[in-house]
Amino acid sequence: MPRLSQRALNMPPSPIRKLVPYAEDAKRRGIKVYHLNIGQPDIPTPQVMLDAFRNHQIKVLEYGHSAGLWEYREGLARYYQQYDIAVTKEEIIVTTAGSEAIIFAMMATMDHEDEILIPEPFYTNYIGFAHEAGVKIVPITCYAEDGFRLPPDEQILNKITPRTRVILICNPNNPTGYVYTREELERVRKIALDHDLFIISDEVYREFVFDGAVHHSILHFPGIDDRAILVDSISKRYSACGARIGCLVTHNKEILETALRFGQARLCPPTLEQIAALAALNTPASYFEEVMQEYRRRRDIVVDALQEIPGVICQKPQGAFYTIAKLPVDDADKFSQWLLEEFHDNNETVMLAPANGFYATPGMGIDEVRIAFVLNTKAMQRSMEILKKALSVYPGRVK
Amino acid sequence: MPRLSQRALNMPPSPIRKLVPYAEDAKRRGIKVYHLNIGQPDIPTPQVMLDAFRNHQIKVLEYGHSAGLWEYREGLARYYQQYDIAVTKEEIIVTTAGSEAIIFAMMATMDHEDEILIPEPFYTNYIGFAHEAGVKIVPITCYAEDGFRLPPDEQILNKITPRTRVILICNPNNPTGYVYTREELERVRKIALDHDLFIISDEVYREFVFDGAVHHSILHFPGIDDRAILVDSISKRYSACGARIGCLVTHNKEILETALRFGQARLCPPTLEQIAALAALNTPASYFEEVMQEYRRRRDIVVDALQEIPGVICQKPQGAFYTIAKLPVDDADKFSQWLLEEFHDNNETVMLAPANGFYATPGMGIDEVRIAFVLNTKAMQRSMEILKKALSVYPGRVK
Repeated sequence: MPRLSQRALNMPPSPIRKLVPYAEDAKRRGIKVYHLNIGQPDIPTPQVMLDAFRNHQIKVLEYGHSAGLWEYREGLARYYQQYDIAVTKEEIIVTTAGSEAIIFAMMATMDHEDEILIPEPFYTNYIGFAHEAGVKIVPITCYAEDGFRLPPDEQILNKITPRTRVILICNPNNPTGYVYTREELERVRKIALDHDLFIISDEVYREFVFDGAVHHSILHFPGIDDRAILVDSISKRYSACGARIGCLVTHNKEILETALRFGQARLCPPTLEQIAALAALNTPASYFEEVMQEYRRRRDIVVDALQEIPGVICQKPQGAFYTIAKLPVDDADKFSQWLLEEFHDNNETVMLAPANGFYATPGMGIDEVRIAFVLNTKAMQRSMEILKKALSVYPGRVK
Repeated sequence: MPRLSQRALNMPPSPIRKLVPYAEDAKRRGIKVYHLNIGQPDIPTPQVMLDAFRNHQIKVLEYGHSAGLWEYREGLARYYQQYDIAVTKEEIIVTTAGSEAIIFAMMATMDHEDEILIPEPFYTNYIGFAHEAGVKIVPITCYAEDGFRLPPDEQILNKITPRTRVILICNPNNPTGYVYTREELERVRKIALDHDLFIISDEVYREFVFDGAVHHSILHFPGIDDRAILVDSISKRYSACGARIGCLVTHNKEILETALRFGQARLCPPTLEQIAALAALNTPASYFEEVMQEYRRRRDIVVDALQEIPGVICQKPQGAFYTIAKLPVDDADKFSQWLLEEFHDNNETVMLAPANGFYATPGMGIDEVRIAFVLNTKAMQRSMEILKKALSVYPGRVK
């Protein structure tokens, strides 16, 4: 048979899914598994959005504009203005989820074998997109002990080569929950200007900031209109992961024109989902208040419980709905598999995402896991109880 | 400002859209424009599909499986069995439209600078996908005078190089409407086996065959389970272009595994659209009978009218809903622009797709246009009347 491409053969499997067969097996054995491994929230999608599907008047489900429906782009421009992000509808390209916005941004700025700097741990699917685009991720390592803030400038600068084209910031961060400060983003801005880099800012968790933390969008910063690219998604904002609606926003006309061409090749994002996303812009403020309160409660339960377990290192994140915890185990991969294969407490166990898959540097994150706050407070509480018990009997426990 | 990628700077604009500004301008001047340039049918989407959106019971619009919802994949397997295509649900990966199936297939089989053979004229967006994937399209030229059948073997074989990895067939063909014969596909099969190539078969117009012509799927042919990749879409079948649901089907497990990894990177295709696509599988046979009759009527009106215009060469296509016509003009690009800028008949004009954008060989298709049968019979008739009058007065007329 003909040989598959190297691109195919080397495409990494999704690290957050590799344990799925063990979870399925546990369920077959009658074990209840609390899924803390994926970012699929249990929060209801806003009623206005769900109703928009029910009330559609479509006769022919047609292609929309390749850059997105104009009404929706107008709505998005108004949405961004609420956050003091001054963009016009012409500066927004609607994409098939944030995923496509990232890949369009990568392809617009990088050729085969170019390099992109990304603070690690990072959203694991960046690896897949970089692989597809044929570009190389160069990680900037951040540490649990530092709460995952950016390292000093020299540790970023010494990663820059003649092939470096982009620095990508995910803010608030998945998987760490870290919210970058104005000063950190100012440093990123200066590095990008000094070294002629684009900045891709993944801000899909914009609304998810707690304890008075302030989210700074990359588009708030002056003097980088030619190089700042915002990528966004409605998946988490409206608990509408299955809608597959995102966007790419920039003041750079050349990038907009290119992204439109990439967009024209695939014709358009889903039409009815955009109509529903437009309706979702009318989600009442009370919805977000409740959702944020709920996530904060969950975070407090999880992090407070983790901090009480001897040997666990976990700082309280101010954003998104994840935390990375350093565990007193030999190998978080083995531990996570053991949780599904061998452990249960009263026929219940937890599924974690081993964090090494969120790092590009080999060996990093070996004793870390990502926990997503995607179950209700009672389930999160119970999950932490199970985790604590498991850690106390795990044969590979260290310290 | 930082330089965009070569991939971005060289990304070709969509040839079927480059005249859009002229059409918009014509409309501003009060001219009615008959859009024969794009494959957006006016046919109603089946009621069962539209109702599925209205009747959804979703509370949380969640991610689905990265390879598509199991129920939908089961439904698709049954759908293919109707056409004697024996596949299991595990051999189907649901994609975000046919576009994504094509790009997954290209990335699975080709690395940067590898080559793919495609009979030209071809679906213009293959150029964009190849460009994104960093691979090179090597055209196999087909001719209007031959009805766009495949050329003799030697004209295919002399295009094969050590970098050739794939031969792509679009059957029934967009833009020519040509339906490949069993013998032609047998030749493709043999070439693929002899030269260790994959075959990507784009069969989105499967149902659109007329006059007793038979559509042969690539999956009907024996001995190529390891190299045949079917790509498909519901866009035309159910007049649901805006749904963005397609699939990739193959017996090759390695390709399925790879496509799943590409799929995991972008998480999933739209969830509710898959539920609607599942419902669409229950579209009554009477729907298709009416639709096919309607397309046949339109085709006959268009082709009969074209064949009566002196100097026009157009054979009657047996499939899809397009035809390529060779016109007695100096340059179909200029003619199409002139139709929008300078011509009108009683304040009406037509918008055509100049066919040179469907060829990879420079200079080919200069005097050809693609006409899509996407308007009702009366509008198609009137469009041909306008075209005839326009050709009689066009200053760049030749012959």
